[in-house]
Amino acid sequence: MKTLVIGANGKIGRQFCELARAAGHPVRAMIRDSDQQAWFRERGIDTVIADLEGPIRHAFYGCDQVVFAAGSGPRTGPDKTLLIDLNGAVRAIDMAVELGISRFLMISAMRAERPLDAPEKLRPYMAAKHAADAHLRAARLPYVILKPGRLTDDAATERLATSLEEAGDNRVSRANVAHALLHLAEDRAQRRREHILLDGRRALAEALA
Amino acid sequence: MKTLVIGANGKIGRQFCELARAAGHPVRAMIRDSDQQAWFRERGIDTVIADLEGPIRHAFYGCDQVVFAAGSGPRTGPDKTLLIDLNGAVRAIDMAVELGISRFLMISAMRAERPLDAPEKLRPYMAAKHAADAHLRAARLPYVILKPGRLTDDAATERLATSLEEAGDNRVSRANVAHALLHLAEDRAQRRREHILLDGRRALAEALA
Repeated sequence: MKTLVIGANGKIGRQFCELARAAGHPVRAMIRDSDQQAWFRERGIDTVIADLEGPIRHAFYGCDQVVFAAGSGPRTGPDKTLLIDLNGAVRAIDMAVELGISRFLMISAMRAERPLDAPEKLRPYMAAKHAADAHLRAARLPYVILKPGRLTDDAATERLATSLEEAGDNRVSRANVAHALLHLAEDRAQRRREHILLDGRRALAEALA
Repeated sequence: MKTLVIGANGKIGRQFCELARAAGHPVRAMIRDSDQQAWFRERGIDTVIADLEGPIRHAFYGCDQVVFAAGSGPRTGPDKTLLIDLNGAVRAIDMAVELGISRFLMISAMRAERPLDAPEKLRPYMAAKHAADAHLRAARLPYVILKPGRLTDDAATERLATSLEEAGDNRVSRANVAHALLHLAEDRAQRRREHILLDGRRALAEALA
């Protein structure tokens, strides 16, 4: 059975798909259009074309696990935050419940549970992530929520911290998030768990135990 | 015990407060700042100052029921849709659960459950309302969700339809919504109910039975 990767063409999504492919973890990359397909084909990664603002049901068939790594990103406005980060997540969660998907892994954000404590510019985004996480927690669906800090493009260290106190800094590389995601996708025993993800000193498996 | 009216200074909120006051239904109008207070004081309506983007707990004390009539409105952007219509609702619902409020009445929107079927311009708003409604349905809290069609400033007829087929038109006056809200606020037996609200021909009590 496969892991459906929603938002596979994003920076974390691509790295996760490559790692999964290398590790023999079967994934299907959900991408928005055929222009995005070549990158995945070159790497032997299965794809399905579906848009979070359109039909998505077909993308789930044959998958038993879902990774939600989609995000509208900073180049679009809060209208897309509502349609992708919030409504896309709500739709994916509801579809996963309907189809009996066995587990849902959500990439959220550190402190998403307190949107009003974020810097003003980030609050609308955090509100969307918070509501999406709450929808997942309330769904009849085993889940793991990953809460990375401020994302960087640094290389993977595969070493994490899981609290600000431990890390001393709020950053985490997308590469480390992708490694954490693969670890959690394979550790099927984790259910109803939430992990803050920061660059740190502990071996990844220990930090996420 | 009182009904807390969140968004009391809005067009529906004000009409509901006036009707409630006239009917002897005790309400407390939650308003954002003291400039909004005079209108309520003149009418003998209790107020509390609280902002959905700030502390709200104090507003709930002594209230056993909540009406959520707040909305950021069309003059602000989708950032405020995320912070008020979505996150404000999520916060109000969570606070109601935490404080043991006995019932939550939500003003949502007709067809909010299918945001992508809405005209493109309305989709982000509908996504926010849909997620807020879903949060309420999943909460441990008795609720009634009101789903008005396109709102007008027409006078009250106190006559409703509860489906598009019955109404033949998608409009409903804010005045009729305010009357429906008062009826439902007083009909404490209604729990886990959702009503489409449109201008129609049936007596309000019958349409909402």
